[in-house]
Amino acid sequence: MNELRKDYILDRWVIIARERGKRPHEFLKEREKREKRGLCFFCPGNEHTTPPEISRIEEDGKWLIRCFPNKFPATATEVKTFEENLLVRMSAYGRHEVIVETPEHDTCLGDLNVEHIAKIIDMYSERLIENKKDPRIGYVLIFKNKGKEAGTSLEHSHTQLIALRTVPTAVREEVDASKRYIKENGNCPFCDIWKMEMKSERRIFENKYMVAFAPFAPRFSFEAWIMPKRHVTSLEFLNEKERFSFAEILKKLISKLNSSMNYPPYNFYLHVSPKKEDLHFHLELCPRMSKWAGFELGSGLVINTMPPELAAKHYRE
Amino acid sequence: MNELRKDYILDRWVIIARERGKRPHEFLKEREKREKRGLCFFCPGNEHTTPPEISRIEEDGKWLIRCFPNKFPATATEVKTFEENLLVRMSAYGRHEVIVETPEHDTCLGDLNVEHIAKIIDMYSERLIENKKDPRIGYVLIFKNKGKEAGTSLEHSHTQLIALRTVPTAVREEVDASKRYIKENGNCPFCDIWKMEMKSERRIFENKYMVAFAPFAPRFSFEAWIMPKRHVTSLEFLNEKERFSFAEILKKLISKLNSSMNYPPYNFYLHVSPKKEDLHFHLELCPRMSKWAGFELGSGLVINTMPPELAAKHYRE
Repeated sequence: MNELRKDYILDRWVIIARERGKRPHEFLKEREKREKRGLCFFCPGNEHTTPPEISRIEEDGKWLIRCFPNKFPATATEVKTFEENLLVRMSAYGRHEVIVETPEHDTCLGDLNVEHIAKIIDMYSERLIENKKDPRIGYVLIFKNKGKEAGTSLEHSHTQLIALRTVPTAVREEVDASKRYIKENGNCPFCDIWKMEMKSERRIFENKYMVAFAPFAPRFSFEAWIMPKRHVTSLEFLNEKERFSFAEILKKLISKLNSSMNYPPYNFYLHVSPKKEDLHFHLELCPRMSKWAGFELGSGLVINTMPPELAAKHYRE
Repeated sequence: MNELRKDYILDRWVIIARERGKRPHEFLKEREKREKRGLCFFCPGNEHTTPPEISRIEEDGKWLIRCFPNKFPATATEVKTFEENLLVRMSAYGRHEVIVETPEHDTCLGDLNVEHIAKIIDMYSERLIENKKDPRIGYVLIFKNKGKEAGTSLEHSHTQLIALRTVPTAVREEVDASKRYIKENGNCPFCDIWKMEMKSERRIFENKYMVAFAPFAPRFSFEAWIMPKRHVTSLEFLNEKERFSFAEILKKLISKLNSSMNYPPYNFYLHVSPKKEDLHFHLELCPRMSKWAGFELGSGLVINTMPPELAAKHYRE
């Protein structure tokens, strides 16, 4: 039976269209072809083609991970607001940074070793801490685009960060819904969710400090969430062991997606607490194997032909 | 300056990233190749391959427009609700229909003559009226997917309709925001919006009864909205002259998009009032020339590199 499902806490609905459903192997597509191009701005030797470096992590005297401002930022350097009836706009004050994850042009995040991924997570933490120091910054979003279908233009593996004055809508809604749940139930919804999901068909993996599961109302086929077992409000507050545990589970999840689905395009992003607020930190992994069409744009609902119970089974196998 | 813009009435923000901006011709892409395939289910002669016809409009004794149930519906025939803590789901009760717009396999909607498009609009009206008769139906969404990037799997020009028990989120938010505006200002926001936009740089075209403009905070490059000048709450309440005027402006808008952007993929959908509620009917046209990536999914904000003022100029020229 095709069913409408509501997100755990948000007023966000999806249609799980089981009857239109494909089997996991039917989602398989040819791997996106790598472009042949003369110059990769992110490769060693071309550091002069990027804006000046902000931060780096080295290994054997060479950079392993680099961070610099995006050459074509989506943000602005001014702080201005204009408001007239029906037309509200403000300068998009903030910062837009790029984190190159590896010097190797052809390596995917999931193929790096755990120690390397742990260092990428260290870089994410450092950038969160640094950007939050600006009192005009209200929120820092870290996100990754992998593959053309996931919106990337440069194939060398990288992550981006956009820091803005205000808390973006999707995070605002999540924080507010979480607050309402805490008020009604006395505890964090995500603490309740992961404990419930680790006993459900939607369980993917867990290790000592972290869990991965397919959410009950996913907007994407094979969508998966990772979160710490401990109630931690942002990435930088994970302790060293938890951080390594996070690197392990992220590697396992992406490796499994790559090997079973032939390196599909995907996005992931971190949802952390805004300053002085309380949200259980988590990562949402969104493979991009189908497209949103007129129904999704016009209704705000998403049709997903892959039930999360089946997706989780596929990840576990 | 890159700027954050708010939708006229919704709490929906976009970043107009002018500084990343491309000129209109840089959005030009190769036209999607037509697939060679043995059998088109929507072509004359293959009517037996579709579910039984619900309605048709004829010309010279042959069908010009056909409507039948979707062979792989996203909806369900049962009415059931299940609710446990954190897990809310219900059967996706409703109807999912297909409207084949023309017997000709290779013709685009924008290339049909105005009289033909007016008949397609007649069919939309009839299906709205018919589906609203079911007391269990709360909303009827009519939408079109054109091109693979816009999520269509069958290239023969068609529109779809999904009728559901409840009003979908995107429509609910628009109706509620419209109500709030009416309460505060005494009149319909869309009546105010079109009058303002017909005097702004975002004006595209108008004819006797209808207007087309690029919205102030568009989520898509070259996004355009069409609405009647008169405050009409749903398509079927347009009078005959308004309906023909709607066909004219829709043809002009899509023809212009096709000719200047080389037949790009697009979606459109109708936003009509839910039963017993009041929303100024309009159509939203969303060309799909760029992709939403991790930032869009994680933040709920959209980065759009095409300012609507420039898009409108391009449509007018």
